[in-house]
Amino acid sequence: MKLKDWKRTEAVYERMFHPRRIVIVGVSTEGVGFGSGIYMSLRTIGFAGEIFLVNPKGGSFLGADMYKKVEDIPGDIDFAIIAVTARDVPDALEACRKKGAAGAEIMSAGFKESGQPEGIALEKQVREIAGRGIRVIGPNCFGIYCPESGLTFMPAPDLSRKSGPVAFISQSGGMALDYAHEGKSTGVRFSKVVSFGNGADLRETELLRYFGNDPQTRVINMYIEGIENGDEFFAVLKEVSRQKPVVIYKGGLSAAGSRAVTSHTASMGGSRVIWPSILKQVNAVQVGDMPEMIQASLAFSLLPQRVYKNMSVIGGGGALGVAAADMAESSGMEMPQFPHAIADRMMAILPKPGSSAGNPVDVANPFVPPKTIGEVLRIGAEDKRIDFQVLISLLSHFKSMSLATGKPVKEITPYQELAKYTDEAIKETGKPVIVVLPNPRRSLEFMDVVELMELARNAFLGRGIPVFDDLRLALRALEHVNAYYGGRNDE
Amino acid sequence: MKLKDWKRTEAVYERMFHPRRIVIVGVSTEGVGFGSGIYMSLRTIGFAGEIFLVNPKGGSFLGADMYKKVEDIPGDIDFAIIAVTARDVPDALEACRKKGAAGAEIMSAGFKESGQPEGIALEKQVREIAGRGIRVIGPNCFGIYCPESGLTFMPAPDLSRKSGPVAFISQSGGMALDYAHEGKSTGVRFSKVVSFGNGADLRETELLRYFGNDPQTRVINMYIEGIENGDEFFAVLKEVSRQKPVVIYKGGLSAAGSRAVTSHTASMGGSRVIWPSILKQVNAVQVGDMPEMIQASLAFSLLPQRVYKNMSVIGGGGALGVAAADMAESSGMEMPQFPHAIADRMMAILPKPGSSAGNPVDVANPFVPPKTIGEVLRIGAEDKRIDFQVLISLLSHFKSMSLATGKPVKEITPYQELAKYTDEAIKETGKPVIVVLPNPRRSLEFMDVVELMELARNAFLGRGIPVFDDLRLALRALEHVNAYYGGRNDE
Repeated sequence: MKLKDWKRTEAVYERMFHPRRIVIVGVSTEGVGFGSGIYMSLRTIGFAGEIFLVNPKGGSFLGADMYKKVEDIPGDIDFAIIAVTARDVPDALEACRKKGAAGAEIMSAGFKESGQPEGIALEKQVREIAGRGIRVIGPNCFGIYCPESGLTFMPAPDLSRKSGPVAFISQSGGMALDYAHEGKSTGVRFSKVVSFGNGADLRETELLRYFGNDPQTRVINMYIEGIENGDEFFAVLKEVSRQKPVVIYKGGLSAAGSRAVTSHTASMGGSRVIWPSILKQVNAVQVGDMPEMIQASLAFSLLPQRVYKNMSVIGGGGALGVAAADMAESSGMEMPQFPHAIADRMMAILPKPGSSAGNPVDVANPFVPPKTIGEVLRIGAEDKRIDFQVLISLLSHFKSMSLATGKPVKEITPYQELAKYTDEAIKETGKPVIVVLPNPRRSLEFMDVVELMELARNAFLGRGIPVFDDLRLALRALEHVNAYYGGRNDE
Repeated sequence: MKLKDWKRTEAVYERMFHPRRIVIVGVSTEGVGFGSGIYMSLRTIGFAGEIFLVNPKGGSFLGADMYKKVEDIPGDIDFAIIAVTARDVPDALEACRKKGAAGAEIMSAGFKESGQPEGIALEKQVREIAGRGIRVIGPNCFGIYCPESGLTFMPAPDLSRKSGPVAFISQSGGMALDYAHEGKSTGVRFSKVVSFGNGADLRETELLRYFGNDPQTRVINMYIEGIENGDEFFAVLKEVSRQKPVVIYKGGLSAAGSRAVTSHTASMGGSRVIWPSILKQVNAVQVGDMPEMIQASLAFSLLPQRVYKNMSVIGGGGALGVAAADMAESSGMEMPQFPHAIADRMMAILPKPGSSAGNPVDVANPFVPPKTIGEVLRIGAEDKRIDFQVLISLLSHFKSMSLATGKPVKEITPYQELAKYTDEAIKETGKPVIVVLPNPRRSLEFMDVVELMELARNAFLGRGIPVFDDLRLALRALEHVNAYYGGRNDE
């Protein structure tokens, strides 16, 4: 097999994402450096493979003996994490290559992004070594987080070990780290996250192609500052977008943003004019910031793959219903009025006065029993026009009941039942429900409500029901789903 | 004085917002009703005046004797809270009028919004009684929250007692209640909040005129579903907008939204086409949802009154700087590159490698000492072009240090120092700083970080420095400030 072909084989990626033997080069015993930090993270998260540590002075760290040189490690290694000073990186990388490593992530900074001749020359050396047969992620990156194998970032000992359908390819380490954390509470689960920084070797196009073929990945997320080869990238993007949604956040489209890109990851920016039109052409999903990416990915992950048009809204508080109706219209969706037969059956079980059931359904107060809410969802789904239902639940109001009864809010709030009855309504009717859990209370005396909202969120997410903080965000996510599946069907 | 004139006097409003003697009509001793709920809320929040309770059966509640009739209360009353069944409201209101009450809030529902002939007739009766000399807020509303006097909503025993510059006029009770709570953590402080529901008597136009003249109110917020008299409203809005910013969220601009409005507060909607153009003409500030209103009001409350054009951004993480630059441009602001003299002085005190100081300033890691951050802010302000600075602080990363050291995150995170040095930089340079505190971590094991972020938010807000969760939200708020002061100067 030619070197070029070898580099693209499944086996190489497999050894990088699921390595059995890894080396961390550059583990300082003084203070918390990248090397010692990543070692602690890997141990805490429970990485299952063998970890070898290298420090030129030898010694030991957290009970593990350190090797003075990569060469001293017995046997082969699969993957290397390099965290030495920039000028020592080429030698370390070459040693790992000779040791048989399929790949390496270089966390060290001080390369092309520094703008200095020395850094630029060092990055060229890294690229040359990579060309001789070791795949490089970085430099100036956070590398790989793979929930299945337990490879993680630094410092990130606490990321989720639950795999999911979303892959994230990020030019920024900070974005990768933050999103990996945020995935845990928002419900986005990852197949793999790769922070590739300067991208001296592996970068956007090749990673995109890999995740396009990765059976574990159903949704691809990308944070891109600059691309190396536009033609090739957009060709691959077009191909992959036919198979699965690719959600892209392109940073640096403004003048100042483009300047910031150069000092961040040494990439060339792009034009605010060209990007959106090309992305639209290839049916990629463009988002404007990370929250939008996360919310879109949650919708892509958890909702059946189709276009959503007509919705019903069940919520407490009339103004929320008004807002829902307005937002639906500006998101290109509709809220058809329920026929009397359906509205009357809802009204028969809802508290009076205060309720109304025209769509939106105003349930008058936040304490309506979950079983009734489930029944309302079941009745609403009988309207054949309805594609999906939105449940806006004002659980934070149970705080007042907690204050009145003296019982902890998480004990008296029936979020488990609400998730259960909602789930049953979804399963019986076949119509998805999107849950919105607004929480206007997070000052210090409401920390119990913040915790409650997380528990409630987990209860719904655990049943595969998407949860958003805010209806506007939910509908914006759904707009992306509609644009993608609408665009794909048009082809 | 004619009745019509009397009704508009300061003295009437004064007796409504700062009543010395109030009556709650309709205090049930069984379960938690509106009457008993509001009584408990008033006692807990520490309302300073006298409270009389009325229940046709007499008896006592929480140790307070109840009167069987309003007439039995000795002496005059200033303000009444009416929470009886709709059909008993007219008699109760008339009794309160005869008792000399300047005003009353009617919490009860079952009036015009029910769409039933009986409810419509009852609302007409309420209006007639109001015409004879008692100002009515409601029916179908939550009434008044006034931090200074301690009048509050139900259930809202825990709202802030700190007054501030923002008045909120809301047709929706739920919005009023939620915003009153959210103000507490976001830093928006209220002069008064009025939920007027169906608005049988006092409603948008008259309240707007009152707050336009209220010296305690510098910023007016309105949630409107429908207006009674368009010409009069827009004339008053134009007049008031010359004095102070009026931030308006108009609900029900869509077809379905307009339908929802009718069953919510019995108002007629309006057109999506007409509203924005009229609001722009009169230099009112239009927002699309409550978060946008809250964030705009925070900016109006805490920033010097002017147009903001050129900004600098100091943050940890290169991608955040890139995002900042992009967002600045799309918000009509600019991030001029720092001259070398300034950038070099910043670089001299920032950690290397990893930092850059072109504007955005990337401070390489979240652990740079607050004193250094303060110094960077001071140096950046020397660039004469800069109007304001944005500090993006990734305090959530201290969680890893907390895990490593075993010390509580709120003890090891220097948020107090950061607020102090930021405040000093603002005071010395005269250039405002907007703080962004993103927190991507709120899953259950990060509740300590959620608490930390609240503590940090309070530390900045306590010094009058505005804090946002997200840069996009901060800049959107600033866009409103720019539009308002830009529009006002154009006149």
